[in-house]
Amino acid sequence: MILGRVVGECVASQKDPSHEGRKLLMVQPLTLDGGDQPGPPVLALDAVDAGIGDRVLLALEGFSAMTAVGRPNSPIDAAAIGVIDTVDITDPA
Amino acid sequence: MILGRVVGECVASQKDPSHEGRKLLMVQPLTLDGGDQPGPPVLALDAVDAGIGDRVLLALEGFSAMTAVGRPNSPIDAAAIGVIDTVDITDPA
Amino acid sequence: MILGRVVGECVASQKDPSHEGRKLLMVQPLTLDGGDQPGPPVLALDAVDAGIGDRVLLALEGFSAMTAVGRPNSPIDAAAIGVIDTVDITDPA
Amino acid sequence: MILGRVVGECVASQKDPSHEGRKLLMVQPLTLDGGDQPGPPVLALDAVDAGIGDRVLLALEGFSAMTAVGRPNSPIDAAAIGVIDTVDITDPA
Amino acid sequence: MILGRVVGECVASQKDPSHEGRKLLMVQPLTLDGGDQPGPPVLALDAVDAGIGDRVLLALEGFSAMTAVGRPNSPIDAAAIGVIDTVDITDPA
Repeated sequence: MILGRVVGECVASQKDPSHEGRKLLMVQPLTLDGGDQPGPPVLALDAVDAGIGDRVLLALEGFSAMTAVGRPNSPIDAAAIGVIDTVDITDPA
Repeated sequence: MILGRVVGECVASQKDPSHEGRKLLMVQPLTLDGGDQPGPPVLALDAVDAGIGDRVLLALEGFSAMTAVGRPNSPIDAAAIGVIDTVDITDPA
Repeated sequence: MILGRVVGECVASQKDPSHEGRKLLMVQPLTLDGGDQPGPPVLALDAVDAGIGDRVLLALEGFSAMTAVGRPNSPIDAAAIGVIDTVDITDPA
Repeated sequence: MILGRVVGECVASQKDPSHEGRKLLMVQPLTLDGGDQPGPPVLALDAVDAGIGDRVLLALEGFSAMTAVGRPNSPIDAAAIGVIDTVDITDPA
Repeated sequence: MILGRVVGECVASQKDPSHEGRKLLMVQPLTLDGGDQPGPPVLALDAVDAGIGDRVLLALEGFSAMTAVGRPNSPIDAAAIGVIDTVDITDPA
């Protein structure tokens, strides 16, 4: 799982029925100090009613993601499964 | 899942029967601001009748992809499962 | 599996019930010589009572991670499954 | 799935019985314009009788790869499942 | 699967019982010309009695790795499943 920040939402008209009724979040992976990772955002279905700006815990595996949103046997490979309240980091050096 | 742009199609003569009748899309992953990611394109079976230039939602996991194209137990690990209409992005800074 | 160092813990209020009662470790992947990898930390459930500063063995696959923490059919895709005592490395050149 | 070019073959004496009788191809991932990706080659079992120099479609997931070579329940996580004849690419800019 | 070179071994006291009696190899992924990849080593259970310095074939998927070491339903996501004898590479240019 990784930590990310919700930076947007996507709207798709042609899509799999299993995605109906769930927000499709655009999530930017974060670095250890909370900055944005270089690289692409991840698109994840929302299982915890996360909103833009929230730091979220992302599951990045099919079965895990399907389980999180309660839709097994669906084409879902990533889901936001937690909203992070606090992160305690020790000196990484 | 990731966001990509359909940039081409591949034609293969020697291939698995499960791939018959489906387009094999060449999809370039996109960055947060809609530009092309550096790195290689992904080849994905088409589950939503996407065309060149479309922005698509890609499932990048075997079971998800097989489910999306309705061909379980097949060698398919990526599929285009949605056509993205709009992306709302907040200030990522 | 990869080698990482526990650098922090995350607290999430909105989360999947399968995560209750397990620490959510923030783990930085390590290089061959024991330094921090560039790139993002991984979030992993704790199966071995690891603490901050410990070097841990991370399983990075859903089924493996769920098995390690004894919670099958849960949205868990990474777990700390060992605490590393010693690493013997030969000259990598 | 990704596109790659067969650049070599590996011979292994100590190996899993499921790999007997199949070529172990060394495949370099390709960029959008057909050049070699930086980064390591992938080792894949051959399901389509590909030869050195061929452009191939690679499945990079265990179940997909095992299915492609007809050997379920085997330690196989990548397979060459198609030989690419033509690639039509639109202007990526 | 990828090609790697065994560069060390790890010893873990707190670990999953499924890892008992198997060496935990530290394996550095290799480039096409046999040099070390930049990036972190992979930790893999040994299924072929590989030793330090050996070039090995790594399975990097849970089911494949568990099958290779004969321990299904275990938290194992990588295994050394072959010892490479020879690699024949054509001119990659």
